[in-house]
Parts: sequence; structure tokens; C-alpha cells
Amino acid sequence: MKGVFGILCEFGKVAWWWWWCRCGVGVACSAPEEAVLGSACRSPRSAFFRIGQMSNVDLDDELLDPVSARLIPYPSPLTTHPFLLWGCRPAGGGRGAPNTKVVDGGQGQAEQGGSRRGRAEVTILVLFLVFREELRSFAIEALDIDKFTERGGLSFSLLLWATLNSAFVLVGSAIVAFVEPVAAGSGIPQIKCFLNGVKIPHVVRLKTLVIKVSGVILSVVGGLAVGKEGPMIHSGSVIAAGISQGRSTSLKRDFKIFEYFRRDTEKRDFVSAGAAAGVSAAFGAPVGGVLFSLEEGASFWNQFLTWRIFFASMISTFTLNFVLSIYHGNIWDLSSPGLINFGRFDTETMVYTIHEIPIFIAMGVVGGILGAVFNALNYWLTMFRIRYIHRPCLQVIEAMLVAAVTATVAFVLIYSSRDCQPLQGSSVSYPLQLFCADGEYNSMAAAFFNTPEKSVVSLFHDPPGSYNPVTLGLFTLVYFFLACWTYGLTVSAGVFIPSLLIGAAWGRLFGISLSYVTGAAIWADPGKYALMGAAAQLGGIVRMTLSLTVIMMEATSNVTYGFPIMLVLMTAKIVGDIFIEGLYDMHIQLQSVPFLHWEAPVTSHSLTAREVMSTPVVCLRRREKVGVIVDVLSNTASSHNGFPVVELADDSQPARLQGLILRSQLIVLLKHKVFVERSNMGLVRRRLRLKDFRDAYPRFPPIQSIHVSQDERECTMDLSEFMNPSPYTVPQEASLPRVFKLFRALGLRHLVVVDNCNQVVGLVTRKDLARYRLGKGGLEELSLAQT
Amino acid sequence: MKGVFGILCEFGKVAWWWWWCRCGVGVACSAPEEAVLGSACRSPRSAFFRIGQMSNVDLDDELLDPVSARLIPYPSPLTTHPFLLWGCRPAGGGRGAPNTKVVDGGQGQAEQGGSRRGRAEVTILVLFLVFREELRSFAIEALDIDKFTERGGLSFSLLLWATLNSAFVLVGSAIVAFVEPVAAGSGIPQIKCFLNGVKIPHVVRLKTLVIKVSGVILSVVGGLAVGKEGPMIHSGSVIAAGISQGRSTSLKRDFKIFEYFRRDTEKRDFVSAGAAAGVSAAFGAPVGGVLFSLEEGASFWNQFLTWRIFFASMISTFTLNFVLSIYHGNIWDLSSPGLINFGRFDTETMVYTIHEIPIFIAMGVVGGILGAVFNALNYWLTMFRIRYIHRPCLQVIEAMLVAAVTATVAFVLIYSSRDCQPLQGSSVSYPLQLFCADGEYNSMAAAFFNTPEKSVVSLFHDPPGSYNPVTLGLFTLVYFFLACWTYGLTVSAGVFIPSLLIGAAWGRLFGISLSYVTGAAIWADPGKYALMGAAAQLGGIVRMTLSLTVIMMEATSNVTYGFPIMLVLMTAKIVGDIFIEGLYDMHIQLQSVPFLHWEAPVTSHSLTAREVMSTPVVCLRRREKVGVIVDVLSNTASSHNGFPVVELADDSQPARLQGLILRSQLIVLLKHKVFVERSNMGLVRRRLRLKDFRDAYPRFPPIQSIHVSQDERECTMDLSEFMNPSPYTVPQEASLPRVFKLFRALGLRHLVVVDNCNQVVGLVTRKDLARYRLGKGGLEELSLAQT
Repeated sequence: MKGVFGILCEFGKVAWWWWWCRCGVGVACSAPEEAVLGSACRSPRSAFFRIGQMSNVDLDDELLDPVSARLIPYPSPLTTHPFLLWGCRPAGGGRGAPNTKVVDGGQGQAEQGGSRRGRAEVTILVLFLVFREELRSFAIEALDIDKFTERGGLSFSLLLWATLNSAFVLVGSAIVAFVEPVAAGSGIPQIKCFLNGVKIPHVVRLKTLVIKVSGVILSVVGGLAVGKEGPMIHSGSVIAAGISQGRSTSLKRDFKIFEYFRRDTEKRDFVSAGAAAGVSAAFGAPVGGVLFSLEEGASFWNQFLTWRIFFASMISTFTLNFVLSIYHGNIWDLSSPGLINFGRFDTETMVYTIHEIPIFIAMGVVGGILGAVFNALNYWLTMFRIRYIHRPCLQVIEAMLVAAVTATVAFVLIYSSRDCQPLQGSSVSYPLQLFCADGEYNSMAAAFFNTPEKSVVSLFHDPPGSYNPVTLGLFTLVYFFLACWTYGLTVSAGVFIPSLLIGAAWGRLFGISLSYVTGAAIWADPGKYALMGAAAQLGGIVRMTLSLTVIMMEATSNVTYGFPIMLVLMTAKIVGDIFIEGLYDMHIQLQSVPFLHWEAPVTSHSLTAREVMSTPVVCLRRREKVGVIVDVLSNTASSHNGFPVVELADDSQPARLQGLILRSQLIVLLKHKVFVERSNMGLVRRRLRLKDFRDAYPRFPPIQSIHVSQDERECTMDLSEFMNPSPYTVPQEASLPRVFKLFRALGLRHLVVVDNCNQVVGLVTRKDLARYRLGKGGLEELSLAQT
Repeated sequence: MKGVFGILCEFGKVAWWWWWCRCGVGVACSAPEEAVLGSACRSPRSAFFRIGQMSNVDLDDELLDPVSARLIPYPSPLTTHPFLLWGCRPAGGGRGAPNTKVVDGGQGQAEQGGSRRGRAEVTILVLFLVFREELRSFAIEALDIDKFTERGGLSFSLLLWATLNSAFVLVGSAIVAFVEPVAAGSGIPQIKCFLNGVKIPHVVRLKTLVIKVSGVILSVVGGLAVGKEGPMIHSGSVIAAGISQGRSTSLKRDFKIFEYFRRDTEKRDFVSAGAAAGVSAAFGAPVGGVLFSLEEGASFWNQFLTWRIFFASMISTFTLNFVLSIYHGNIWDLSSPGLINFGRFDTETMVYTIHEIPIFIAMGVVGGILGAVFNALNYWLTMFRIRYIHRPCLQVIEAMLVAAVTATVAFVLIYSSRDCQPLQGSSVSYPLQLFCADGEYNSMAAAFFNTPEKSVVSLFHDPPGSYNPVTLGLFTLVYFFLACWTYGLTVSAGVFIPSLLIGAAWGRLFGISLSYVTGAAIWADPGKYALMGAAAQLGGIVRMTLSLTVIMMEATSNVTYGFPIMLVLMTAKIVGDIFIEGLYDMHIQLQSVPFLHWEAPVTSHSLTAREVMSTPVVCLRRREKVGVIVDVLSNTASSHNGFPVVELADDSQPARLQGLILRSQLIVLLKHKVFVERSNMGLVRRRLRLKDFRDAYPRFPPIQSIHVSQDERECTMDLSEFMNPSPYTVPQEASLPRVFKLFRALGLRHLVVVDNCNQVVGLVTRKDLARYRLGKGGLEELSLAQT
């Protein structure tokens, strides 16, 4: 009788603690679980506070105007849901533009100092805002949960637990599904696309940041198998993109600062730096952050950019250390590690030998296969979701279902577990006794109740024998499927930490088996294998190598394991790539984004620019009737963002390319009514300046909003002064890889194709190139858009 | 009497040891000083062994053939000495070439696997060969030098010492000056140029490697203030470039392997990877090596290249660790650090606080100023050398003089020093008692007798009070001028370690002063300031930031100091850049190399392609007379490497650009006599293949060696099939930054300038662009060449 009572009592304790720490969120931010939240614990309040604080955040990247919205590549079968189809448009073009005479004057000087300064501020703000609340939750973590016990039935506990989880996930999912669908997921694919030059509407908006931060808090509180690192990277990018613009559309204020940065290229550089700062803060890995930005993002690399990104990362780490030093009490000691610290692997005690290299490679193979399985399952799941779960309310229901299932499964596992471990020498924060003897705790419960980060550390560093193989096996299995089901839900959630946790679990299991086989040899420390397993699993899922190696090295403060980690990651990538793409690339492809990879498909040498280009192209003349321009811009068929300008056509001579003018420039010209006739009549008060173009960035008004009278339609516009007089061109015989290289190296958005008389024959856009990819049966042509 | 005898005895010991360890080189490789040698202790034998071993090293990059030798940019006043003027030619062009129909077929597939494999081998070989001997010298280091004493007069000791040093330097300098002048210096400027796309003859030849390795051994043995890291990086690059070609011209053998890599771009990638592997091995810094390659070298960055470089670096570290593990006895433990390990800075005991940030920045300023002084002195010295010391025998004499002065100064300093330190707790390897009491050693002697690497470690880690401030001050002063005088001598020598040593010395002095001022506060550990001083000094001299930060972090196994090190390096760079360029850039500029920086000068927006281009351009027609082609190639005035191919000109129509053909392609075509008439007559046995071009790479025969009979001169050649049909072009109105960007992003060597009818109006070459740089008084036009 006493035993049953004890059990109930224990379960009640669990339930209470669960309930208490979850309910505490809105009230006092007081539970250990909040340590996971990362971004901002007192979510709604702090988020709103942030709006006031960061009033210079720019809410750009609006949904496209009706004309250019045509460009949104809705793939044929999947045309329903705005989240699903991020609604992206090829962008990234600033690089091609600023050679116009107007723009050419005097740029370049401001670049260095200002931009560096800007980025430093960015990162300081990122950290100060994002981690202040985290620290507060850390502070309250020390409270003793044992005080909060409640007695209740077993089923009541389960019900309470599952219901509460679902409720939190309901809110978290609802705000994402109904308010800002682009805030779903980890945000890394979206940032990748953004850095690749594809503008995804809303992705760097303040609203997205608010929803993302609130959403990830609610997901984590809701007990889902998610991490907060991806969202943190996304948040860093949003803040960087926002601050760099020096104004806020939502607050209708322009601070008249950082006007220089109101260009696509500058903004993209800021986003790179923000992402690096996010990684740097999340893992305490400044160099890893730089390499992450380079590997995953920055398409247009140069030394200065790297420099700045590195500076941002370092400032980010420094600020984090400073804040943590205040929190830890030793206020001036800046030697704290990153936010997530996998614990130091001491070289003295844990060494590896050359015998283990094949074992590590084998683990890489396992990681690659498991990663491929994860991705394949997630692929089918995502396809299923695209087909059947495209209404927001269905998405919310699915998220709730996952939360309830997660809670139930964890409950059942804990209930059925008999794995008791002694309390002494254990790093478990909230040991739960359950069925165990006094002085012992249930290790399955620990695995589920610890924050995922702590579970990873515990798997890495707990002495051999801390985990029962059966517990590890069950936990791996269950967590694998839960994490796979969770990724892609309409909630804000990252995949880094769950992957690491799965990997650490099976890695430790592997290590334990190995020490059984070898008779507990001294070198078979399970913690080392947990590390390698974590690397293998994460590498198998996301397929990063360079940056991940460095991140793992920095997070474990250990240079020695660099080589085996690299081997493992490389093996996992190679093995995984045989079966299926990486998770992020897979999701990017599922969204039919015109994403340009690093190189053209190898079999595309036979294709020429002529076969790839869009034709016919609408060309404008140097002096063009206003009516013609308005018609061209209003015409939904000519949806390009750039128009070649040709010579005044007379019949004797062919129309040779003279320059290129952008849609946005035309709109600004129309808005300011820069017509030849008005200028002749002295009606134009002042010359148009570079500033007029920058002020309009990035939301050029739609053509419909510009009123042009019938008289004005008869006027002419002289485009010579504003066009780019020497656009990059390519002859029509150029091969696809050549065109691709030009696009990639220069970050173009459109490239004029000319014949050997310099006459315009077509226009290659990003979409024309992204259409071709290497499939199983050779070169495939995707249907990216309806153009 | 006993005192004097003791003194003489001690000096005799010094002299003996000095003599013994130096003489030992040729005989038994037995002295502690050999630990410094780094590359190969038993130099001549091991170098020859290497020739047999690495018979697939390619000795390409020959001195130019008479025609293209015209391209060597001999600057007007400085036309004498081949070392001085490396005799470089713009190269780097492969990127522009392989779009010809012949070349286009089937490339791309072999790329990944093969190249990665190749690089792995490269690095394994690098390490195995370069460090095996180093290890042997390490092994014998343990011998007790106290056994080897000899009694002699003070002046005799000095004389012996100075003479022996000079003798070694004589040999080291003579082989460099007379055999291979390009092996002088650290090799990093040369590698930078090579990676930038400027071919410097001999720079990646086997002969250079042999001379470099022997030379650096002799310089170090000769007691010069030099390091071996630069030469090690250069050696890595040479081996990488050699192996990748799969054949050796010196051994007249072609192994028929790696034929795919016989292209400029592939070779350059290998050189990048080799340099990274060199850094990785030298400092145990694989990530730092990658960043070094990226920051200093790779102009044309992409993800795959970074991947491969990283892989090479990792393999390099791994191999080093493996070899070291064998040496250290614990054969399977792969956890050893790099070859030069600055000792672990333990985060627990050595922390830094936010108060110290301004101090670090101040140190950065000092480092920047001292670095600028160093560079300025070296600049004047180099100018002096260019003017007056251009004959090899003078150069050898100067090197000997420096060696003698170095020995004398060290001798005098040691003699006059009264800085005695207790033996206990000291890390000095060869304590010399001299005038000190028993149980003490002379710390000035320690600073001069230790290897520079060990001195650095000792300055970093010895407990407070180990060094007398006067000793440090004197040492800094003397070593500063010695190092400055030494760099630029005609010997193989690096500047990394001397810079670090100077910086560590004044940094420690700074730290000691600080602890005097603050009353020996606990945070004022002089070792920390020695580290910062070393970073500041090195940063002030070479002006690297990103890679140096990471290298220092990895070499000290400490992530925490990353931020202050970065701050220090950045400050040093900014301060130094106010006064003078970095040392490497300065030397590159002194050699008048057409080196392209990252971006065009900021004030160059007003220049257009028309003003920059070379004109008139020699064009060829699609079907051209053989005689015309031979004349064009023989004509020294038309010294370009690429010729635009235009339409068959009739009078009515202008000659439009049809393609571009390279000098090397024309030569191969002429050699194989691919004439239309012969082909019509069935005389051409087989079609020319890609292989024919690759086999000729990189030493295309000079035009004079190809015999063309008078009959053959009347034949015609059809260039359509071999030319690049879609060369990159630029309109004549394009601004210089635009042209520059195209060059830099695509790695071009020539760019055709066309008017808006697609007629050729000029050709922009690398030299045309490198001519413009931002001087004190705005944009300056350099006279790089006589073309």
C-alpha cells in the first residue's frame, strides 16, 4: 500500500513540477525547463518590450506587389498554402545595379567603418535582448522543485501533463499558423535562401522575430522534441537586417541613419553577420559562426565580408561572456563559455588512438544512414502535410496531437522504466526517484525531464555505467521518431539539439556495447562515442562539415577531436548524400525556391544561354514614352525586374543593347515624374538623387499606386541618365556552366543575352538557371514557376 | 682566480656546445638547436632522398620562353637581379580558357574524388618528409650538453662562434643567391602572388624546395633571427603543386596520373591546400590553416575548395600527431598538439577581465606602431639592397655580416648580463650558469640559447619574476633590429617566430610594468601580456587578422582569449595601416608584381575600361594564314597571352568578336600542324584532343622551336574549333571597379573590351588593372611594365 502511494506520490510530483514550471511561464518564469527557452522567457512582455527598444528595426521584405507577385513560383501541384510556399522571389540583385550614373557617385567611402560599427551594435543588441531573459530563467532555476508536490491519480497526471503540453503547443502553433507562417521551422532554410539571393517575404521582419521567439518558447515549454538554435540564428539575422536599415516601417519612423545600407547587398551582408553572431552566441563558437555563414550562406564571399562577420561573431561571444559573467557573479571574468556548452573534453583523460579511426568512420556511416532515414521520413511527412494538412487549423491540431503523443510516450516510457542510478556523482539536475530505492533516481525520467542540452552534456560526460543500454536504446528510438515527426510542424523549432541528442544516445549505446565487446578497455569511454554519435547524427541530417566540425570543436573546447569529428561528419555527409539531400536543402527544394547551388550541374555543358534564357524580352528605348513604360510595368506578362535599354530603333540598324534599367528605378522615376517635357518646362524642382532610390528601398510602390494622367502618358522619359550603361552580358553561345558562374560569382539577378551584333536576344534570370538540376536520370528540368 | 676560470669554463661550454651542435649537423644530427630546423635536419642527404622518393614532383613554372619573357615586368630602375625581380608574369588564366569546344567535353566528373585524394597524399607526404628528420633531432635533444666542455679564451669563443655562424650562413646564402634566388625569404609573398594568379617562375619547383629546405636549416643553424614557418608553408605549397601534376620534368618522367590536374586552376587549388597544410602542421592549427589560405591566398573561393583545403589541413594535423605520437612513445595516442605549441593557457587559472580590454587595445596600438617601424626600416633596407647589393656575392657577404653581428651582439649581451634566475620551476632547456650562483642560470643566455619557439613558450608561461625587466628590454631592442636586418637577406627565413618573440618580450615587459604599477595585482599575469604582445607585434608586421586570431587560439588551445587576441590584431592592423603596408604586401609591391587586391581603389570610379585597356589589340580571323599567326606569335610587340578572334573582315561590315584563342593553344596547334589544307589532304592523322593541350601544360614550347616551312606559311588554320566561342567581354564604358570585379570574381587574365557593335576595341589585362592603386595623393598609376 505504501509502495503504491509512493508511486502515486512520485508521479504527482512529476506532474506538479511539470504543471508548475509550465504555468509559471506566464507568471514568474520560474521553471528549470525555461533554461531551454533561450530566446526570451517572459515571452509576450519581453517581445513587446523589444518593439519599443528596437524601434529601428525595419519591417521590409513585404509581400510582393500585384505585378511582381506573379514571380512567386507556385509549383504546379502545390499551390495552396502560404507557409508551404514561402512565396519567394528572385532578388539578390543589387550587385548588378549600382553602376548607373546616379548611383556611381561617391559610394565606397562609407563602406568600411560604418558597416563594421553597425554590425557590432547589431550583435550587442542581439545578445542583450535575446539572452537577458534566458539568464533570468537561469537564476530561478535554482529553486527546489521538491517543495511543489501534489497528490493525484496516475491517469490524472498523464492527462494533466498531455493537456498542458497541448495547450502550450496550441498557442505556439496558432500564432505561427495564423499570424506569420514563415516563422515556422528552424528558419535556417529561409536564411539560406535569403543569403542565396532569393527574397522570401517576411523572413526578416520584426513580426517574424516576435512570433519566432514566442513560438519557440511555447514549443519548448510544450515539451516537443525541438531545439532553439535554429530560431536563434534566424533571430540574429532578423535583428541584423532590421538594425542595418535604421528605420521602422511598422513604427513609421525613419531615423535617417545607416541610409547607406539600404541596398540588397549590404542588407545581405548584415544578415550573414547576424546568422554568424547567432551561432556564435548559441554554441560559443565565433569561428564556427563565421564558417557557418560562409558554408551555408554567403554566396558572394570576400575578405572584407569575412572580416566583418568575424568581428560580429567575436563581439557576440564577448557580450555573451560579459552577460554570463554578471549572472555567474564573478562579474569581470570574461572566460565563460557559450550559451550551450557541451562540457570540456579534457585531452589528458580522454584520448583517442589510431585504432579507433575505423570505428569512428563506421559511426559516420551509421549517422549518414540514420540521417538519411530521418530525412526520408521527414520528406514523406512533408509531402503528406503539403497535400492534406494545408489549412492552418489542421496544422494547429497536428501540432497539438504531436505534443500530446510526446507527453504520453514519455510518460509510458518513464512509467515502464526500471533503470535506477545512484544519485552520487550524477549531473542530473532534477532526479526523480519514482520506483527507485532511496538515493537513486530514474534515468529514463532524467533523460526526458532534463533539458535536451543538459541531456546531451550528461550523455557526453557522465561516467561509464550511468546509463542502462536498454534505456538508451528505447530513448533513441522514441526520440528519433518524435523529432522526425516534429520537424516541419507549424511551430518554431530547431533540429540541432534533437539531432545531437539522438546521436549522443546511440553513440553512447555504441560505446557501451564496444566496452562490453572489448572487455571494458580503458579507451572505450562511452562519452567519446556519444560525442562522435552526436556529430554523426547531426551531420547525417543537415550535411554540414566544415562549420559543424569547428562548432563542435569550440563547443567542447577541444582541438584534438577535430580530426575524428571531421572524419565522422564527412563520412556521414558522403553516406547520406547517396540516399537523399540534407534536411535544409530538401525543404528548400520542396518549397520550389529558385536556389542556386555552388556549381552548375555537371552534365549541363551542352546547354547554351540561348536554350536557357527567357525570350522574348521587353526592351525599352533610351527615350521612351511614359505610356509605354507604364504599360510595360503594368503588364503581368513582362514580369522581369530588369529591362534592357536599346538604341532608338530605326529600320536600317538593329537595336543594340545600350544599358539596363530596373523596375524599381522606373517606378521611382515615374513617381517623381522625371519627364523630358517637364524638365524642359522647368517643372522638375530638383535632380533626382541616389537618396531617392535608397529611401524607396525595399518597398517600391506598386505601379498601380502611381497615377499617370493621359497627358503625361504622351510625355517621354530619358532613361540614359539612370540606366546602368554597361550591364553584364553573355553571348548566346555561352554554355550553362559559364552563365552560372557569372551569376554566382557576381551575384546577378539578370543577365542580358546578346548575339554577336550586340542585339538583345534574351534575358537569363535566376529562375532560368535554378530550373536545371542533376536528378537520378541525368539533367532534370524543374517547373519552378509559371512564367 | 677560480672565478675567472669559472667564467672561462662556462664560456668554453657555451662555445663548445655551439660548435658541437652546429658541426653536428653534417655528421650526426645531434644538437638541441636542430629542433629549430624543422624541415630536414640531415639536409643534403634527406633532400636527395626526397628527389628519389617524390619523383612525381613536377618542375614546372619554367623561366619564360623568349617571347613571353617579354611580359616579365622589369620595373625601370630595378632591372638587375633575378631574385629581386622575381620575374613574374600574369597567369591565373585557366579559368578563362576551358570553354573551347575541345576542352568542354567531359570535364567535371573527375573533379571531386581525385582531387581530394590527391590532396590527402600531398599532406601526408609533406608531413612525413618534412618532419621525420625534425623528430630525429628532437630525439637526440635529450643528450646532456654539460658533458661537452672545452676550455678557451673569451675572445676565442667569440671568434669561433661568429666564424662558425658566418660559415653556415655563407653556405645557406650562397645556395640561395647562386642556385635559386626565388627561395630567399619566407616564401609567403611568392605564394600569395601565385595564388593571386601571378606566375612567378620557379616558385613551385622541386629545386626551390630543396634549396628552401637546406637554406632554412643553414639560416637557423647560423644563428640568424629567423623562423621556419614561412618556409614550411612554402614547402607545403611546392609539394602540393608538384604531386598534383603526376610527373617530373627534372626526372623526365610522366606517371600518366593526375592528368586532369594539369591546369592552372587545379594547380592553384593544390597550392592553397598545401599552404594550409603547412600552417596546420607548423602551428597545429587546421582551421587557422584554412583561414590563412582564404585570407592570404585564395582569390577564387568556393565551398568545394574550402572543403578540400580543410580536409588537407586536417590530414596534415593528423599525420603530424601520428608521427609525434610515435616519437613520444605513446604510439597510439593521437592527442598531441602541433609542431609549435605555445603551451596551453588554462582558462581556470588565467582569466581576463573587462578592465583589461583597454590595456589590450593599447598593446595593439604599440604593436601596430612597432610593426610599422619594423616595416619602414625593412623598406629602406630593401630599397638599399635593391640599389647597391644586387650582386650575389655581395648578398652572400651581407648575410655573413649579419650572422657575425648577431653572434657578437648576443655574446656581448650575455657577457654583460647579470640577470640570474633560480633553476627551480624554470622551463629553460639549457641553463647556463655563467656568472650566476649555483642553482641559478643566466636568463639572457637562456633567451639567446633556447630555440626561438621555446623562448616564446617560456615568455608565455614562466611564472612572474622569471625575467628581469632590463633583460627583456635589452633583448627586445636587440632582437627587433636583428630581425629587421635579417628579413630580406638572401637566405631562406621566416618572420613569424622572430615577430612573436619580439612581441612576447615587450609584452611580458609590459605585463611586469603593469604589475609594478598596480601593486602586483593577481590579474596582472605577465604571461598573458606576453601573449597579447606577441599577437600585436606579429599583427603589426604581417597585418593578418582572421587567420592569425584562429592560429593563436589553436596554438594556445584556448578559445577564451579569442576576443582579446582579435581586438589586439585588429588594432595593430588599423594602426599599422596608417603608416605603411604589411610586410608581405610591401615586398610584393617592391617587386612590382601585378598583384590584384581585393577591391579596386575606391577613387577609381571615374575611370572606364576604355582608359584602362591596352590598345591596339592584335586580332586573328576565324580562318587565318599560318604565316600571320607565326608572325604574330613571334612579334614581341604583341605580347598578349590571348588573341581575340574576329569575323572574316570584308569592307562592308565591321569585324565583330567571335571568340578568343590563347597563345598556348595556338602553339599546340602549330606544333601539331592542324592546317586546313593538310586536313583536306587527309594528312592529319587524328583529331587534336584535350589531352594534347594538357600534356603540353605548363611548358608550351616557344614559337622559335616550332619549324614552319615557307609552304606551310601559306596554309590556313581554322580557329573556330579551338577558340573559346564566348569569351567574357565588357563594354568600353564600364567603370574600372566593374572590370576589376569581373577579373577578381572570375579569375580572368584578359578581358576583351568591345564597343556596342561588338567590335573589339581593346584588351584589359591583369597588369592594366594592377597599375592603379590608391596612394597618398589619390589614385596613382604605377609603372609596372614596359609594355
